[in-house]
Amino acid sequence: MTVSYFEIAHGCKDLPARAGKIRTAHGVIETPVFMPVGTQASVKSVSREELEEAGVQIILANTYHLYLRPGHEVVKTLGGLHRFMNWPHPILTDSGGFQVYSLAKLRKVTEEGVLFQSHLDGSRHFLGPDEAMEIQLALGSDIMMAFDECVSYPCDYEYVRRSVELTTSWALKCTKYKGRGPGKVFGIVQGGTYPDLRRKSAESLLELDFDGYAIGGLSVGEGFELRNEMIRVVQEMLPEDKPVYLMGVGTPEDIVEGVCLGVDMFDCVMPTRNARNGTLFTRTGKISIKNAKYVDDERPPDENCSCYTCRNYSRAYLRHLFMARELLAYRLNTIHNISYYMNLMKDLRQAILEESLDRFKKSFYERQGS
Amino acid sequence: MTVSYFEIAHGCKDLPARAGKIRTAHGVIETPVFMPVGTQASVKSVSREELEEAGVQIILANTYHLYLRPGHEVVKTLGGLHRFMNWPHPILTDSGGFQVYSLAKLRKVTEEGVLFQSHLDGSRHFLGPDEAMEIQLALGSDIMMAFDECVSYPCDYEYVRRSVELTTSWALKCTKYKGRGPGKVFGIVQGGTYPDLRRKSAESLLELDFDGYAIGGLSVGEGFELRNEMIRVVQEMLPEDKPVYLMGVGTPEDIVEGVCLGVDMFDCVMPTRNARNGTLFTRTGKISIKNAKYVDDERPPDENCSCYTCRNYSRAYLRHLFMARELLAYRLNTIHNISYYMNLMKDLRQAILEESLDRFKKSFYERQGS
Repeated sequence: MTVSYFEIAHGCKDLPARAGKIRTAHGVIETPVFMPVGTQASVKSVSREELEEAGVQIILANTYHLYLRPGHEVVKTLGGLHRFMNWPHPILTDSGGFQVYSLAKLRKVTEEGVLFQSHLDGSRHFLGPDEAMEIQLALGSDIMMAFDECVSYPCDYEYVRRSVELTTSWALKCTKYKGRGPGKVFGIVQGGTYPDLRRKSAESLLELDFDGYAIGGLSVGEGFELRNEMIRVVQEMLPEDKPVYLMGVGTPEDIVEGVCLGVDMFDCVMPTRNARNGTLFTRTGKISIKNAKYVDDERPPDENCSCYTCRNYSRAYLRHLFMARELLAYRLNTIHNISYYMNLMKDLRQAILEESLDRFKKSFYERQGS
Repeated sequence: MTVSYFEIAHGCKDLPARAGKIRTAHGVIETPVFMPVGTQASVKSVSREELEEAGVQIILANTYHLYLRPGHEVVKTLGGLHRFMNWPHPILTDSGGFQVYSLAKLRKVTEEGVLFQSHLDGSRHFLGPDEAMEIQLALGSDIMMAFDECVSYPCDYEYVRRSVELTTSWALKCTKYKGRGPGKVFGIVQGGTYPDLRRKSAESLLELDFDGYAIGGLSVGEGFELRNEMIRVVQEMLPEDKPVYLMGVGTPEDIVEGVCLGVDMFDCVMPTRNARNGTLFTRTGKISIKNAKYVDDERPPDENCSCYTCRNYSRAYLRHLFMARELLAYRLNTIHNISYYMNLMKDLRQAILEESLDRFKKSFYERQGS
């Protein structure tokens, strides 16, 4: 009997939450896991060593961006993405679908794929399920995402219904790439905010037996309640022995909710982007380092944090760097925010293993703004 | 007998070049030394640990910038500049003179000092010799520079003559701060490109018995030959037992020449600014990492360099980061360029100690562009 690449160490008694392990060609990931975003083969402003010290186990890289620049063939020639960017640990690549819809210009969606213009130079390109998978194979991804259509929010029922069909037909093509490389292939459940379409999408993808399942097309303005409802609808249908990945989510609160709903994997630009805007996460909520009250504040950003930034720098210095637009500001803030997210995931995992997730959630909410 | 804070380990037989040591309250500096510029209490994009690994012994910070933001009183309240920026090693602060002339708006120079408007918000400020020294004391500088007037190039004889007199009268006021803190106080020789005014300036400052002497007002467009002539004129007059600091210089070639002419200390934005513009120094000359030929070049920037960047990253990746405007580009390039400058200084020091400076200089020039 082969050992599954995904193993559940403990499932909560009263909640779908679980703690597990994902084995990849580049190492083991402990779940629930948060994946910092390294869009262009770099998690903005931080080094490999800083990610490792923060406890990062897997990062996400963007197929769309790397296809356009420097080009997946170049990356392949240079030994693949891990070697190119000096990150020997797991990498998940998205399919490029989301970026084609959110960044590219003049899109034309057909049954074959999407014709679009680069946001960099206006050059014309085509991305379909085969292209998306070939690019991800060339990059040497550990977890490849099936090519999907992302609909905007709100979106009318009929459009979403047809879109789910398209995503399903593309997903079928993507499953042919299972086993073509060391990377696993995940399908993406779409369906907007329509429970029946979400169920239909999940049902069709389940027949294709992906290595894992993502819930896509959320965090696009639908709101907390509606999102959680969609997660519930999909999660109930998914097999217990496959990882569940909630794409593009989210705030610390979103992640706590997601974990409670049975999600194993998350990614979001929030910790890194917020850092560059001067917003720092702390155990008691967010702070804006720009605030004049920090001008002579000797305390670290978070007195309960032991990250590199908190060990070495004061709010006063971080405020000064940010106001003076010093490059070091972005890096020190990013190290702290990523550390915050990593610690949150560690705490959530521990709470699951100790059957104390309810208590953790309660105290997490009590701390915010205290 | 007290041990001098500046000690010469070896002086060359046929050249004024020498290798020495400067003792400061924050540690010993081996000369000849290059000081990376940390204008706003940060060497742009790099951390303390990266500076240490590159071999940096002392950095320069700017009085003008720190006075305006965050303010020297704030820095003092927070325990001084070393603690504020987490740099426990020596710091030299300039007097603010150069920035007042090059950055500030609407200057009015009187015998008392300079009235100017901040380049940040147009607010009005006054900086004179007493103010400049008080600010540097508040910052806790290890080497404080006397307040001077920097003239532009070219500048007519009569203006420079009067300016030297003004700088001398300010220098007299600055010497009163000797011994007021742990920091040494250096005078700055001015005099434009007029040998007799350079001599007059040096002569007057020598009477004031500064802890060290800087040659200021060069590298402003006067050219290689004229600059070297001015260095020679001044260096000949300076006492052997005081450090000589050539301000704002320069390229690797300028530094090799300066060391041969007896200069002990240098500072320049060149390694850091060039790094952020994509220009990397190598043993065989400069390269522009933007160049398309590096798109799939697996080699490190300099195959003879063992810095963090060269150990871990290829030209192809550095080019990609630079083209994609990734923040990591500026940092990796800066680490490399600072390491290049530090290695150059180490090689120069070793050549002095081994009486092989002529040979080093010859092979240095032969390597360029090879």
